[in-house]
Amino acid sequence: MSRYWSEITHQLTPYIPGEQPKLANLVKLNTNESPYPPSPRVAEVLREHADNQLQRYPDPNSIALRTTIAQHHGLALENVFVGNGSDEVLAHVFLALLKHDLPILFPDISYSFYPVYCGLYGIKHSLIPLTDDFQIQVDDYMRPNGGIIFPNPNAPTGCPVKLADIERLLIANPDSVVVIDEAYVDYGAESAVCLIAQYPQLLVVHTLSKSRGLAGLRVGYALGNSELIDGLTRVKDSFNSYPLGKLAQLGAAAAIQDTAYFASTCAQVINSREQLIADLNKLGFNVLPSAANFVFAAHPQHDGATLTAKLRERSIIVRHFSNPPRIAPFMRITVGTDEQCAIFINALTDILNHTTE
Amino acid sequence: MSRYWSEITHQLTPYIPGEQPKLANLVKLNTNESPYPPSPRVAEVLREHADNQLQRYPDPNSIALRTTIAQHHGLALENVFVGNGSDEVLAHVFLALLKHDLPILFPDISYSFYPVYCGLYGIKHSLIPLTDDFQIQVDDYMRPNGGIIFPNPNAPTGCPVKLADIERLLIANPDSVVVIDEAYVDYGAESAVCLIAQYPQLLVVHTLSKSRGLAGLRVGYALGNSELIDGLTRVKDSFNSYPLGKLAQLGAAAAIQDTAYFASTCAQVINSREQLIADLNKLGFNVLPSAANFVFAAHPQHDGATLTAKLRERSIIVRHFSNPPRIAPFMRITVGTDEQCAIFINALTDILNHTTE
Repeated sequence: MSRYWSEITHQLTPYIPGEQPKLANLVKLNTNESPYPPSPRVAEVLREHADNQLQRYPDPNSIALRTTIAQHHGLALENVFVGNGSDEVLAHVFLALLKHDLPILFPDISYSFYPVYCGLYGIKHSLIPLTDDFQIQVDDYMRPNGGIIFPNPNAPTGCPVKLADIERLLIANPDSVVVIDEAYVDYGAESAVCLIAQYPQLLVVHTLSKSRGLAGLRVGYALGNSELIDGLTRVKDSFNSYPLGKLAQLGAAAAIQDTAYFASTCAQVINSREQLIADLNKLGFNVLPSAANFVFAAHPQHDGATLTAKLRERSIIVRHFSNPPRIAPFMRITVGTDEQCAIFINALTDILNHTTE
Repeated sequence: MSRYWSEITHQLTPYIPGEQPKLANLVKLNTNESPYPPSPRVAEVLREHADNQLQRYPDPNSIALRTTIAQHHGLALENVFVGNGSDEVLAHVFLALLKHDLPILFPDISYSFYPVYCGLYGIKHSLIPLTDDFQIQVDDYMRPNGGIIFPNPNAPTGCPVKLADIERLLIANPDSVVVIDEAYVDYGAESAVCLIAQYPQLLVVHTLSKSRGLAGLRVGYALGNSELIDGLTRVKDSFNSYPLGKLAQLGAAAAIQDTAYFASTCAQVINSREQLIADLNKLGFNVLPSAANFVFAAHPQHDGATLTAKLRERSIIVRHFSNPPRIAPFMRITVGTDEQCAIFINALTDILNHTTE
């Protein structure tokens, strides 16, 4: 606390990201990164441009990258907004499109940055409980609101929402913005991008930090009607004219263009996930159905926090959330390579055997 | 305008950055970049790490980079805040440290992003007029305020404020934050960094986009008492946990470590500036005394807008500001290489001869 801080600074409860420890030989399954590097074309482009006029400002409008993204999704340039990671994109979304008189709606168990943005910008919100089996039920969102946002698949549960349900919600909710945060959509959920042409209130947010293997470069984007994109651009241009450096713009475009590599690494993660779920089930875990690159698993006889701590002693890091209490029994486990998953399952087997002896 | 926008989005007047045209053979003297590339060590580091685990999130706290910056300035890690260009750093400064009941103070002629931040965050401000000879007079800022911010040297004038005057202001103004925006300080002004240990209300902002030749990578930082840095960190962690990618962190550190290259390129720009000023004076221009990598020049017989347009016809781009009217006669000319400055002066000579014929 400081007398120099603004009132809002005193009031903030900042987001706490998953840790990025520097330990050697770590099996790091805590922050939902891809276990695979980005397309090799990314490194080629970065090397090629490592001394290409970095003294010049980058394109403030990221036209080349946005054009690449638009083409990839069958949209136009005016439908694409880019930012310094999808967290920055989301921050601008909250201020530009979700700050209204009525409270916005999002799940009680969801990406824990959403309430932080509300605190930062003074946005009222109501938490909508997941169903008893941890699902987002879109009917629960059909009430007066200043906007709606949820991840699909949801985090940290991994559970997807059907496209038909999202369209039902859009039909029932024409007057406020509906944001579908598709950070993990490439691992098996149905994207709502195909609905953008029909629903001007729909905004879809993507990141390159997961399925594109580029968390280290910081690029995310939003797709929607040009009206929504224009609103985001107004806020961006009042915050930072140049959110993406030259290398970030070039590297991101290279990653998006390599569709074959993308398809192959996503398929590999999905295969590994199914094996991981089967192995966890064999160990007696309750694993929520996942369409993401992570699984949410609880054991009827073992506490999530304890298991997380015991795994950590063996240099295996997963993520545990104490709040709300309903998810405290769970661990969120990022799908690693098959080798990492095997190390994890072996360690977990050993911990369970040891604990029950 | 859109019914989906928040009220603030409707009200915003975004900043308009200097254009980044894609024309070939352009002499680009409009956005105050360095005419020299960054240290060659930057490209080496970027190439070396182009495929180094970019699938992983970067260090959210940028410890290595902040340590390098702290050592460079003789400060501690806790005195350093980093961001995605100094524009992002400034945005966080406005929200975290300059939003109070009393209006903040800044010059009427200054960095035109300051009033934009005020609009974004609902911060009251009072414009303090420059003196008749376009100087910042610190006595004019000794009045009740919610904070004070100005660039040193000022932009777009290039005029510096003496360190003794800044210290007088700090002594007179202990109760609100004083931000010195030193984007251009390395070209000949006195830095206030040496006062940080004595004045807990002092925050100094630097960028790597000018004297470090890294506008394309997007890195800026703030230096100050840990209390101020903690406030900035609270806002940053409520906005984007990972503002700097891995390559930005590594490239910035490499640039800062190469002190010899830095000294040599700054000296070259200063030499070129002095020649440019002498040449402009010979052509009859009134050039304000500059401690920056740009000069602010007006001709008694020629309008700034007209000259800017005529230069543009010859593929030479400088920046012109129509507002306030008092600076409309001026052009802001970035100091280029000697060759670029010579092309500019030759073109300008020709324009003046042609126009007066």
